[in-house]
Amino acid sequence: MQKFEINSPLDMHLHLRDADMLALVGPLTSKSFSGALIMPNLVPPVTTKEALLSYKDRINEACKGDGFEPFMTLFFKNDYSYEFLEEISEHIIGIKLYPAGITTNSETGVSSMDIENLRPTLENMSKLGIPLCVHGETNGFVMDREKEFMPIYESLAQNFPNLKIIMEHITTKDAVELLDKYENLYATVTLHHLLITLDDVAGGALNPHLFCKPIAKRYEDRTALLTAALEAHPKLMFGSDSAPHPKHKKECCGCAAGVFTAPIALQVLTDLFEKHKKLENLNAFVSLNAQKVYNFKAIDKKITLIKKDFTVPAFYEYKNETVVPMYAGEILPWSIESIEK
Amino acid sequence: MQKFEINSPLDMHLHLRDADMLALVGPLTSKSFSGALIMPNLVPPVTTKEALLSYKDRINEACKGDGFEPFMTLFFKNDYSYEFLEEISEHIIGIKLYPAGITTNSETGVSSMDIENLRPTLENMSKLGIPLCVHGETNGFVMDREKEFMPIYESLAQNFPNLKIIMEHITTKDAVELLDKYENLYATVTLHHLLITLDDVAGGALNPHLFCKPIAKRYEDRTALLTAALEAHPKLMFGSDSAPHPKHKKECCGCAAGVFTAPIALQVLTDLFEKHKKLENLNAFVSLNAQKVYNFKAIDKKITLIKKDFTVPAFYEYKNETVVPMYAGEILPWSIESIEK
Repeated sequence: MQKFEINSPLDMHLHLRDADMLALVGPLTSKSFSGALIMPNLVPPVTTKEALLSYKDRINEACKGDGFEPFMTLFFKNDYSYEFLEEISEHIIGIKLYPAGITTNSETGVSSMDIENLRPTLENMSKLGIPLCVHGETNGFVMDREKEFMPIYESLAQNFPNLKIIMEHITTKDAVELLDKYENLYATVTLHHLLITLDDVAGGALNPHLFCKPIAKRYEDRTALLTAALEAHPKLMFGSDSAPHPKHKKECCGCAAGVFTAPIALQVLTDLFEKHKKLENLNAFVSLNAQKVYNFKAIDKKITLIKKDFTVPAFYEYKNETVVPMYAGEILPWSIESIEK
Repeated sequence: MQKFEINSPLDMHLHLRDADMLALVGPLTSKSFSGALIMPNLVPPVTTKEALLSYKDRINEACKGDGFEPFMTLFFKNDYSYEFLEEISEHIIGIKLYPAGITTNSETGVSSMDIENLRPTLENMSKLGIPLCVHGETNGFVMDREKEFMPIYESLAQNFPNLKIIMEHITTKDAVELLDKYENLYATVTLHHLLITLDDVAGGALNPHLFCKPIAKRYEDRTALLTAALEAHPKLMFGSDSAPHPKHKKECCGCAAGVFTAPIALQVLTDLFEKHKKLENLNAFVSLNAQKVYNFKAIDKKITLIKKDFTVPAFYEYKNETVVPMYAGEILPWSIESIEK
């Protein structure tokens, strides 16, 4: 049977949540990935050294023994002092900026994307070499939010040429194109945005499990993202944005945004790259690019995938809740055969 | 308190369903409307005289005593004979064409919108003066489906100059513009498409109760629709497309398409036209235009609305089911004070 080896996969955009949910979803990533960049949008968000280190401890506890490194991020505030950032810099890989109210638990994000408003923290980050991760959406019309954010990315890139700026979970052709325009712009892309369009969310029946922010866009957008991923564009990294919510918060009126892909990410990526005859680029997309962009050496881990049916669980249980993964109950052509660390 | 009178309101696009659902939703329209154009997409669809008359009887039974006329439609088939249509013509106001699979219970719709495929029935309708009501969507990208259908409307209008063609539940600026290009093109517009955009469906949290087909579009589309309605464009008629589904089919994975607006339509229209200082045009939009387009005299009925809070029920019950209306549980500024027939 056909096999494929992924070395030290990295998920550069991940929501691990906390408490019981963390205990469930942490290992679903940590067993098969070498490391992941952890989102700080808890309630309250991670804005202090104490909160950060304590969250890191809880993650390490949930993932212990798996040979997994959580790359911590701080929730952006526009008044972080140089001293504070200098002290915390060894514990973080970047700082995540959310416009206020743009997605789950982002209520305390920045209220204005005006550069002067952000300058104090951004200058400190720039001096200290701390990358900036950005949820790049305006509060405009849902299909235009990312495209409308492009001038803000341009302005950030121009004003802070020494700052590494990561456009998180890009969903549009416009963002892919911007990647090549500024040396200091990078991006992550999710698994689901390589696979779906708005048609999958709301074209037939409404599908709450594929509802996410940014929302899935048009076919030409998906094509641009997929092309860049398959070519392992050196400035593009895999970041699942796997975002679990309890089932009752998805299948209800007022469905929460987020697609839970952690348990299927490597299997589906392998399938996707194989179908497009680009397996030779998968290790760069899912590991090497991130190590170069963020300049670190990932923990050694060898994941062997085998072309053998894998039935995705219909749900994962924790306490009295369940979480439904993408492709719940479906059969995927690739399975994880073994993990060597 | 401010009052406003609507005379003989008509809903020129309505789903009354059947059996227990019909018993519930029929009176929610028939009490306050003089008549409604009834959609034929039952399971199986209404394609015979027997089915049509029997459905009409069931509607009259559900709505009896209300002074309400159901204007029946037949489900389009491309092989209706002249003789059949001649015989049935006195019982119908039009024939409704669905592209196959485009919305709820449309599986047996036409498989090709090729004019030659439709010609036999359309020529017979044209000779007999039977209007054609169309669900105008392609099976393309969800936001483009109506726009992509415009050339088909143009081709129909050109090929059958004596056929009255009604573009049902239009949702785009393109459709509004097309209305003035061909003498034999008319349209209905729903209440919800005058009020919402895709942002209300999927911009914040996902809202299954606002999920419908065609899906709500962009702000510029809503503005074009609203402007035409407020001006009581003579070729534009009110058609709610009120489409009740049991709650469990809305608030679930795989949510059914349709917004249930029958219980609130007149109250919200009055509010909308008042806010835009166009109350003087409401009677034309909601009654007179349709009487002219379809050439009939509506049953006399006088609805007096009063500017007094109306709390929309959270749901309506039937058997072991509930149906959730638009604005469930919210307070509207206008109520129905009295109905005189």
